[in-house]
Amino acid sequence: MYNINETIVALATPPGIGAIGVIRLSGSKAIEVTDKIFKGKKLANQPSHTLHFGKIIDGEKILDEVVVSLYKAPKSYTGEDVVEISGHGSQYILEQIINLCIANGAHMAKAGEFTQRAFLNGKLDLAQAEAVADLIASQSGAAQQAAMHNLRGGFSEELKAMREQLIKFSALIELELDFSQEDVEFADRTQLYHLVDDLTGTAIRLADSFRLGNVIRNGVSVAIIGKPNAGKSTLLNALLNEERAIVSDIAGTTRDTIEETLNINGVLFRLIDTAGIREHTSDIIESIGVQRSMDTMKRADVVVYLYDVNTTIPDEIEEQVALFKKENIKYLLVGNKIDIITHPQREDAIYISAKNKDNVQQLKQALYKIVVEGEINTEGTIITNARHYASLQEVLRSLTDIKAGLDHHIASDLIALDIRRCLFYLGEITGEVTTEDKLDYIFSKFCIGK
Amino acid sequence: MYNINETIVALATPPGIGAIGVIRLSGSKAIEVTDKIFKGKKLANQPSHTLHFGKIIDGEKILDEVVVSLYKAPKSYTGEDVVEISGHGSQYILEQIINLCIANGAHMAKAGEFTQRAFLNGKLDLAQAEAVADLIASQSGAAQQAAMHNLRGGFSEELKAMREQLIKFSALIELELDFSQEDVEFADRTQLYHLVDDLTGTAIRLADSFRLGNVIRNGVSVAIIGKPNAGKSTLLNALLNEERAIVSDIAGTTRDTIEETLNINGVLFRLIDTAGIREHTSDIIESIGVQRSMDTMKRADVVVYLYDVNTTIPDEIEEQVALFKKENIKYLLVGNKIDIITHPQREDAIYISAKNKDNVQQLKQALYKIVVEGEINTEGTIITNARHYASLQEVLRSLTDIKAGLDHHIASDLIALDIRRCLFYLGEITGEVTTEDKLDYIFSKFCIGK
Repeated sequence: MYNINETIVALATPPGIGAIGVIRLSGSKAIEVTDKIFKGKKLANQPSHTLHFGKIIDGEKILDEVVVSLYKAPKSYTGEDVVEISGHGSQYILEQIINLCIANGAHMAKAGEFTQRAFLNGKLDLAQAEAVADLIASQSGAAQQAAMHNLRGGFSEELKAMREQLIKFSALIELELDFSQEDVEFADRTQLYHLVDDLTGTAIRLADSFRLGNVIRNGVSVAIIGKPNAGKSTLLNALLNEERAIVSDIAGTTRDTIEETLNINGVLFRLIDTAGIREHTSDIIESIGVQRSMDTMKRADVVVYLYDVNTTIPDEIEEQVALFKKENIKYLLVGNKIDIITHPQREDAIYISAKNKDNVQQLKQALYKIVVEGEINTEGTIITNARHYASLQEVLRSLTDIKAGLDHHIASDLIALDIRRCLFYLGEITGEVTTEDKLDYIFSKFCIGK
Repeated sequence: MYNINETIVALATPPGIGAIGVIRLSGSKAIEVTDKIFKGKKLANQPSHTLHFGKIIDGEKILDEVVVSLYKAPKSYTGEDVVEISGHGSQYILEQIINLCIANGAHMAKAGEFTQRAFLNGKLDLAQAEAVADLIASQSGAAQQAAMHNLRGGFSEELKAMREQLIKFSALIELELDFSQEDVEFADRTQLYHLVDDLTGTAIRLADSFRLGNVIRNGVSVAIIGKPNAGKSTLLNALLNEERAIVSDIAGTTRDTIEETLNINGVLFRLIDTAGIREHTSDIIESIGVQRSMDTMKRADVVVYLYDVNTTIPDEIEEQVALFKKENIKYLLVGNKIDIITHPQREDAIYISAKNKDNVQQLKQALYKIVVEGEINTEGTIITNARHYASLQEVLRSLTDIKAGLDHHIASDLIALDIRRCLFYLGEITGEVTTEDKLDYIFSKFCIGK
């Protein structure tokens, strides 16, 4: 699919109108192609990591005044010669420049092709490359930190350590096979057993972090339900208004998406589109069990059940709680309108006044606690990628098999097979073991220009 | 409004998701601020026009891995120290980095503030600065070329030449005022008369180019009208389909806007939203004179009247032509369906088969000819800015006054006043004469980050 001998070109900045736009070229002819269309210093003669002002020319016609950034192999993102052309941010002009690069020998880059080259040239392993995409997509501090940790190789190092320890034993056991007639044991079975135990612990910890990773990467979906007049809109406003105040002024920040998004301790909470729930709340409460409402609640990571402390009878709350428990729904009971009267309180509820914004902060912390803190420590590696999770499951399965093999004193060659399988799945995550098809699939999900 | 002593920061690339995003800082503290948040080489010690890889850190937290471009004053866009931080293209992360810059002493840039500083520091004159905004907004080759010409100082040079010639006479005439008792004439009146004639010619040529400039900058609006079954949709498709094929693959190119846009010889033709016309075409033709339809036709730069050559009687066409002429509407008669039968033809019409795409190219060229070629030569300076046009009108008025003054042998001091007025308006275009309010107004129409 990809031809690494080609020099590729693409727009690296988002489409749209801005002060500048950046076009990126990578490949052995990146500098040669640019020199053909750039009027200024001859780039081939310039040192790496320098900036050059000049014009992009198409024959006699000046297309733009630009600044060119020069990165010579291997000191670049892709490990190849890279040129970045910073032009005026007109879609039309940037398109013209890209077409001109193509006319002069460059090829339009495919999605993720720059990062794929970085991987193929050994600048990043596969887990790091995937972290680049996560970083670009990150919308919260937690997502950003998890991606940065992985981009900087935190996850890869843990996997590498596991792989190296296992490879040692693998070598010893494979050596035994050469001496199979002599019935020797080079690999200490007790040590191997302990190692497999350790590795299983690590793999479980990593796999378990995926639940949190998923939350961090995709945000936590929250459905606020309650009877009409329980104060849902007021609560929504109380939650969101505060948020809006800290939204920055950068042009293009879409208010629409922010409307329904909360950032609590760096984690994104999405108020899922509960238009149905909000419009027909009475249905939900009064005809409990209606499939549509149930589905919506089950789809949410957590359901906030808001009720008026002054008018809600305890049985009603009990009934709701029983339903949540029966359906295994994570929930938070929130008694509203404590500004009017404070009724006898349940221990397991939070009491707020949405109107006066009393205890709204506590509600946020409770949301965070129930969804995020319930998971493992947020320090260290967090798996955010379903592909990694699937591979880790296979790693765990292989480890269990090795252990079972040791328990039953099975033949060395069978244990060696299980160890190899385990190494295969570990290597699959970082891309040490992979196929071209798989790579193409992974990188095709990137954006063009990356 | 602006404080040039502040160091400013803003996102320079369009908002949205891309491989990279660029944050730009400018001002005396641009390097100092960046050094505080950048972990890598100390930028203050690095030479201008160099690139540096490193991390953006907020205390212990790594926000992003970035490349920093360093431009030291005066060799930068603004003429001040400029730093560009190229980070991963996540809106969230870029926002974090901007906030960090602000926390470390930078101020959020106002719209156009970078370019305003370039102007104030003498890197660009006002007409050139305005060309920057035009360049970013350009959507066609003609708009791009006009803006590039002006950005590169083409227009400014013509004005400068006019100003210099006039200043010489102004000095001589003002000298006469010092010797007013002695009734001497240092300034040769005949030469001055010729000069004013020349300048008037130039000013008229420039002012006249504004009609074309407007077309180039804003595109040509085209209304296609005709009876139901004349083949309007087929023609639209024939015009647009061809266009779609050459639309590049850059992500985000909005198909919606392209749907209604044609590029003919580098000039943008917009098919104005004639939903009304298209839906109720029969009204337009049958009840000629209906105000709403007339308004739509008058709003267009050109109206294409499409008719079926096989079914349209000559009187109907005559009636339509008479209306166009009466209302002073630019029009093009297009006879469709020549694939069926070719009827007796009018000399002033174009004959096509929208269905077979026969002569669609000729139609395009005719559109170009009627709107664009009717104007002056497209070589050289083209005024695209209403502000420049207004100032040129004042220049022309002053030149007329000078000439009238010379014709009537009025006193030197009055002629001197008219010359000064003329110089004032010439200087206003390039910003040699301006007020802070006016500047703020002009730059406030720029995008943030430019």
